[in-house]
Amino acid sequence: MKLAPVYEAMSRRGAFEQRIVHTGQHYNNEMTIQFNEDFNLPFPDINLNVGSQRHLIQLSQMLIGLDKELMDNTPDMAIVYGDTNTTAAGAIAASKLNIPLAHVEAGLREWDKSIPEEINKLLIDAVTDIYFCPSITAKYNLNNTGTKQNVHLTGDVVLSYMLNNTDRIIQEEGILSDLRIIKNQYYLATCHRAANTDNKKKLSHIIYAFQRADKPVVFIMHPRTSNAIEKYNLKEEVDHKNIKVISPQSFWKTQCLTLNASKVLTDSGGLIKESFLHKVPSVILDTQTEWVEIVESGWAHISGPDAQEILRALRMKPPENEVRNMYLIEKAPEKVAEIIYQYLTNHN
Amino acid sequence: MKLAPVYEAMSRRGAFEQRIVHTGQHYNNEMTIQFNEDFNLPFPDINLNVGSQRHLIQLSQMLIGLDKELMDNTPDMAIVYGDTNTTAAGAIAASKLNIPLAHVEAGLREWDKSIPEEINKLLIDAVTDIYFCPSITAKYNLNNTGTKQNVHLTGDVVLSYMLNNTDRIIQEEGILSDLRIIKNQYYLATCHRAANTDNKKKLSHIIYAFQRADKPVVFIMHPRTSNAIEKYNLKEEVDHKNIKVISPQSFWKTQCLTLNASKVLTDSGGLIKESFLHKVPSVILDTQTEWVEIVESGWAHISGPDAQEILRALRMKPPENEVRNMYLIEKAPEKVAEIIYQYLTNHN
Repeated sequence: MKLAPVYEAMSRRGAFEQRIVHTGQHYNNEMTIQFNEDFNLPFPDINLNVGSQRHLIQLSQMLIGLDKELMDNTPDMAIVYGDTNTTAAGAIAASKLNIPLAHVEAGLREWDKSIPEEINKLLIDAVTDIYFCPSITAKYNLNNTGTKQNVHLTGDVVLSYMLNNTDRIIQEEGILSDLRIIKNQYYLATCHRAANTDNKKKLSHIIYAFQRADKPVVFIMHPRTSNAIEKYNLKEEVDHKNIKVISPQSFWKTQCLTLNASKVLTDSGGLIKESFLHKVPSVILDTQTEWVEIVESGWAHISGPDAQEILRALRMKPPENEVRNMYLIEKAPEKVAEIIYQYLTNHN
Repeated sequence: MKLAPVYEAMSRRGAFEQRIVHTGQHYNNEMTIQFNEDFNLPFPDINLNVGSQRHLIQLSQMLIGLDKELMDNTPDMAIVYGDTNTTAAGAIAASKLNIPLAHVEAGLREWDKSIPEEINKLLIDAVTDIYFCPSITAKYNLNNTGTKQNVHLTGDVVLSYMLNNTDRIIQEEGILSDLRIIKNQYYLATCHRAANTDNKKKLSHIIYAFQRADKPVVFIMHPRTSNAIEKYNLKEEVDHKNIKVISPQSFWKTQCLTLNASKVLTDSGGLIKESFLHKVPSVILDTQTEWVEIVESGWAHISGPDAQEILRALRMKPPENEVRNMYLIEKAPEKVAEIIYQYLTNHN
């Protein structure tokens, strides 16, 4: 989804010919479906059809597909987004083929190498040529590791894009009555990180907290979580009057559910950041986050997968101070497009 | 070959159980064959049989093989050596599987991302947990990019090993009479870097310089170079009275040829460093080297693939000052083994 704002800005900027490579990695962190419809994106120019499987197998298949694609249609620049296996494969393939590499959402760190995405972040930024940072911390992280050239603080492209599309979020309010939930009278929850879904105890703690929450919990169920619940025999626990399980929604519906929630419980980095944009406090079901500024401002609380801590966080009042959204820089996608244009002009 | 000294030192140290994974990447930079015989190494515990092919395909196949191997036989630590595709695959696989990663010959940089090995270096060091540096510059490069923990200056494991095995080099002197060459009366040449073999003009320049050299040139022919010579129709140029083409030799024979050469012409990083150990000046057929200290000391000259510059370098006298070998730290392999032992003891 991070591709959409930049793709659109580059199309508007003109002078670019763009090709979208879809690796086929199934679900993204924001739990969205209906991708192209949601963002008026053209269909990918090529789909590598790499499905869900062991990380190294996935990476391996992506490298083969990308090798062919990048040889058949060698671009002047490869642009990768975020920190998924797709991003890592794109970065490795482009750098090995000597294609200049731009990374959108560069410089973020969680300082924990047991997280698969952290390894991706390290691999990607090691070979990136132009870095687009969503936050000052991200820029600082790069500068602090000796990376100073072509490091641009552009702000977050997704938040910038969402702010220009609030009408699309409001249009989706019908989902509230469909789900029979009331504005500010429910919590929105997602949980899909391997650290939580691969551990019965952690997952049980999280579900227990959902049962005991003082408001109903709308639980958007990621396929990986659904499989874990099956595997760990937790179906009965989830089938509880305080938990309303729903399937992954379109991006805009998810945003509408976020905007209208009393609080958000999540281990998704994207959703933590989006809640913050909507001024909805979040409870982080993970032990760390790359969005440290939100935690520092008091708008997110790191509970980890601990039932008591999650329930305690739900009782906390949101901070009263008005807080500046430090990720929101106007026209972030346009800035990215312009910097890429200048880079290509100067390097050709 | 970098594995041999550390493998041996770890065996002597005891307390380790070691498994050797051979990816099957055909030829290494030092142009050696007869690997196991040369170094009294046991046969690899597993051979992934990944042959020579496009880099990304090679990497991809290695990742699949390593995923299985590291799941079937999960080690407490993975040790990778140098900067080949094998090293990169090992580093990516181990880090993605959350296996602590040690890198022998860490921190070297050529500051040119068009070199495939430079991309490997960047990827590997981005996810390494323990760094073993062959030189102060290598340690400085890491420190300078914010990497300060577990960075050890152990010196070069290969040079340390060779110094303890000089008798094996001297034993091979028969090769001089076999080739009908005289000590100090020939130049030894190797050339296999993609930058040279993938470019007809550069390769022609190098061969022209070999023809015009003031001493006969013993040219150890890498299969990649041989293919390039065929492809570019340069067979007649190589078939010249001043050029003696020989096939890749055992490690010790190559060292013997190096030790007795008047000068060495090469684009192999390993050979530049080994010549330096033998106090034989080298002419670097590449535009840069990771062994900057040797160039600074005057014992190597960067000519690049330029005939006039190569011939000029051959006429230069070696420096008269006695120079300290800054890569040579006694018992480097033993130091590596001891640090790994301490790390595993403290982390388990």
